[in-house]
Amino acid sequence: MTDTRIRVAALTPQMDLGPREARHLHVLRLKVGDSLRVFDGGGGEAEAEIAELDAGHAVLTLGEAVRSAAETPFPLTLAVALLKGDKLSDVVRAATELGVAQVQLLVTARADAREIGVQKLMRLQRVAEEASKQSRRAVTPAVLAPVRLTDFRWEGQLFVAQPGSAGRMMTLLDWSAPVAVLTGPEGGLTDEEATALIGRGAHAVTLGPRILRAETAPVALLGAIAAAGGGEA
Amino acid sequence: MTDTRIRVAALTPQMDLGPREARHLHVLRLKVGDSLRVFDGGGGEAEAEIAELDAGHAVLTLGEAVRSAAETPFPLTLAVALLKGDKLSDVVRAATELGVAQVQLLVTARADAREIGVQKLMRLQRVAEEASKQSRRAVTPAVLAPVRLTDFRWEGQLFVAQPGSAGRMMTLLDWSAPVAVLTGPEGGLTDEEATALIGRGAHAVTLGPRILRAETAPVALLGAIAAAGGGEA
Repeated sequence: MTDTRIRVAALTPQMDLGPREARHLHVLRLKVGDSLRVFDGGGGEAEAEIAELDAGHAVLTLGEAVRSAAETPFPLTLAVALLKGDKLSDVVRAATELGVAQVQLLVTARADAREIGVQKLMRLQRVAEEASKQSRRAVTPAVLAPVRLTDFRWEGQLFVAQPGSAGRMMTLLDWSAPVAVLTGPEGGLTDEEATALIGRGAHAVTLGPRILRAETAPVALLGAIAAAGGGEA
Repeated sequence: MTDTRIRVAALTPQMDLGPREARHLHVLRLKVGDSLRVFDGGGGEAEAEIAELDAGHAVLTLGEAVRSAAETPFPLTLAVALLKGDKLSDVVRAATELGVAQVQLLVTARADAREIGVQKLMRLQRVAEEASKQSRRAVTPAVLAPVRLTDFRWEGQLFVAQPGSAGRMMTLLDWSAPVAVLTGPEGGLTDEEATALIGRGAHAVTLGPRILRAETAPVALLGAIAAAGGGEA
């Protein structure tokens, strides 16, 4: 067993890796006979042994593929309003560590931006990939291009962080279904936006009487879910 | 009522402010007759009206001082290992938003640093002050100079984030007493450190099967407490 983890497209009993991955193994000072873990970004992972390794390629022999134990038993979605600067990177990174299956970006009335460039979206996806590796997850959450709040659809339960609301996520949470949490931009959702979501079945929940920054609220909500555990090992 | 909040040393029915505060009021485009809120950093706050204002000083007339509604009903302590770079600032900022009464810095076996300079400690205190203002708190958490983990004392319950532990904070939490949460450095506490804390009565708790960064774990734990609420309004 080793701490080294690399991501591959799919898990097969014997795998040929290209020059980039081979270089990565060199950098990690691994050699033939060393073992590492590979994961496919979709929840599968396996122990692997390095069978061949030179400058231009590497061959791995894989053990049995298993479902990662690091995943929540239900898919967890974070829906978050577009935020300025590096804030979204911070949120995506922490959300990945806390086990989300996907991050849906949202355009809301007070969102800091109306859209996001392809480059920036790809950068967020790389942040998710890196964080998933660091947190020993086998799944890389998808970071989904923004949709308008009115077009956002969810499965199962949706919890909306809404200051002044009396709802408590921990008493409402039903662990047997998919769960989504939604947080607004700096300045929050408008009353109309919150009312419309509640009308569509969302639960407004509080994170206490203080005003949280837009980048703290999602981490707090997801932290609460991680702390409660929902049947995880 | 207004969103403007300024911190003062103590709340008195009539207050003389110096040039710095007067300039701040000018910058905010406030004038005589306008109202704002003042807070004393110790949980007291009051509505105030500007009675006099010129370039060099200002006089405020205060309404009745009240205890802030933004405080937890029990004192909440975050004990966190010394971390590199700006990570401690991020943790102090989020912890302040999430309602801690104080942040105790810790020197642990794997901590990124063995000490912290006075300048840096003062900077962390300013981060707490700024965050307390932004989150509409009347209390500025104290950021306490580091102590060795073995010298750390706590009141009430202590929850230690420990990967692989089976304890769940939400089922153990007793809202009627002070609460402290403790998180380690990158790489975590050593087994000896965790065992010693548990021997002293701490509860080891999990945040799920994933590995969290040292700066995410405290936000997740405090988020769980904020989401559960503990009798707050």
